[in-house]
Amino acid sequence: MRSQQIGTFYGIGVGPGDPELLTIKAHRLIRSLPILFVPVARSGAPSYARTIVDAYLDPNRQQIVELVFAMRGDDERMAAQWRVNARSIADELAAGRDAGFLTEGDPLLYSTFVHLAGALGEIRPDAPVVVIPGISSLQAAAAAVRVPLADRDERLAILPANYDSAELRTVLATFDTVVLLKVASVIDCVLDLLEELDLTDRSVFVSRVGRPEEVRVRDVRSLRGQKLDYFSLLIVRRPQ
Amino acid sequence: MRSQQIGTFYGIGVGPGDPELLTIKAHRLIRSLPILFVPVARSGAPSYARTIVDAYLDPNRQQIVELVFAMRGDDERMAAQWRVNARSIADELAAGRDAGFLTEGDPLLYSTFVHLAGALGEIRPDAPVVVIPGISSLQAAAAAVRVPLADRDERLAILPANYDSAELRTVLATFDTVVLLKVASVIDCVLDLLEELDLTDRSVFVSRVGRPEEVRVRDVRSLRGQKLDYFSLLIVRRPQ
Repeated sequence: MRSQQIGTFYGIGVGPGDPELLTIKAHRLIRSLPILFVPVARSGAPSYARTIVDAYLDPNRQQIVELVFAMRGDDERMAAQWRVNARSIADELAAGRDAGFLTEGDPLLYSTFVHLAGALGEIRPDAPVVVIPGISSLQAAAAAVRVPLADRDERLAILPANYDSAELRTVLATFDTVVLLKVASVIDCVLDLLEELDLTDRSVFVSRVGRPEEVRVRDVRSLRGQKLDYFSLLIVRRPQ
Repeated sequence: MRSQQIGTFYGIGVGPGDPELLTIKAHRLIRSLPILFVPVARSGAPSYARTIVDAYLDPNRQQIVELVFAMRGDDERMAAQWRVNARSIADELAAGRDAGFLTEGDPLLYSTFVHLAGALGEIRPDAPVVVIPGISSLQAAAAAVRVPLADRDERLAILPANYDSAELRTVLATFDTVVLLKVASVIDCVLDLLEELDLTDRSVFVSRVGRPEEVRVRDVRSLRGQKLDYFSLLIVRRPQ
C-alpha cells in the first residue's frame, strides 16, 4: 500500500460580512476545496462565517462540516474542544484531502483559527498550513466612516476596551489612532475617559459593520447608558 | 442645460502584491470604472499599485492616469501636490464620471489616499467618496510567517520603528504583539532593544511580502549590519 500524501489545511479569512469583501484567493479556495469546516457556537446554530459565503458553496459537491466552538469555559475545556476539532481536520488531511476553515475577518486577528491551528500542529506537525488573510471588521469600520487608521509615522493601537482606565488612558495618550473593541459592556467608563482626555469629538462608533443592522454613531455622547451590540467598536483618532 | 450629476470617487485598496489578494469588490470596480488614477513617484515611473492589477485592466476601454506623489518635500510642496492631483480627480467627477484611485494595501493604513481624499474634500465637498478596504502588507506578512497578530483580549500595536528607544521600549513592554514598520534604517538599534527585552527569539522579519523578492528571516540576529529593503517589517510577539 502506498502512503497517502497528507492534505493542506487552509485558514481562510472571509472578511467582515459583505460577500464582496472576500479576496479572490479566498473565493477560489472556497469554491474548489472538497471539505470546508465552519465554526458554530453550538451544534445546529448558524455559522456567521458560512452565511457570508453561502452563495459560493455547492453542498452537492462539497462537504460542509460544523465545528463547535463554545464561547466560554475554563482553559482545559476550551483546549479539549480545540483538540476535538483539530482531530476532525487531521483525519481529513490524513486521508489526503485538502480542507479549509472559514473564519470571519482575518484568521490571525482575534480568531479561533489560531487555537485550531495550534492544536492541529500538536496532532499533525507535518500538515502544511496556509493562511489566507481577510479584511478585518476594523478595516471595514474605518472605511465605512472614513477615518484613517494611520498615516506617515503615526502609531495605531488595537485592543479590547476591557482594560483598566489607567492602561487605556496611557494608550489613548500615546497612540495617534486607537481602535477599542468590545466596547459594549464598558461604554460609560470609556466615554468618561474620552471626555477627560478631550477625545469625545474625535471618536466614532460602529457596530455590525457591513450587515443590514450596521450602526454608525458620530455623536458618541448619545451612546451613554445604551445597550449596545457585542460586535461594537470605537475608533479614536487624535487631532494631527 | 441640465446639471450634470457628480461622479463617485473610489479609494481602492489593491492589497500587498499578490493579484489574488484583491477583494472581489476591488476587482469588480477596477474592471468597470471608466477612469483609474494610479500613484507614481515621478512621471513615467512604474506604479506598483498598477502592476498588481495589470491583468485586470483594459486600456482600450479604460483611462489609466498617473498621479505623481513625490515621496519627499516640505509640507507646503506636498500639500500643493495633493491639491493638483485632487483637481485632476475633481474634474472627472464634475464631468459625471466615476473614478478610482488605486493604492497598495489598505487606503486608510499608511496610504497617500488619505491626503488625496482630504484635498478633494476641500475642492469638492459634495463628491461622494467610497473606501474599499484592502489586505495590508502586515496582514500578509503575518499570514506568511503564521504569527498571530492578536488573540482574545490581547493588544496589538503598529508603528514605524523610527521612534526613540524609550518609546519603543514602552510599547514592546505593554503590547502582546508589536508590528514595527520601516525597520531597515534602524535595525541595529531595534535588535539591541529586542535583546535587552529578551524578545529576539519572539521576532520575525519579513520584507516585500508576496513578491518574488520576498524575504523571511526567523533568526533576526542575522540581520545585524545588513542593508535591508525599505519595505521591511518585524513582528514581535510576546510569550503568552
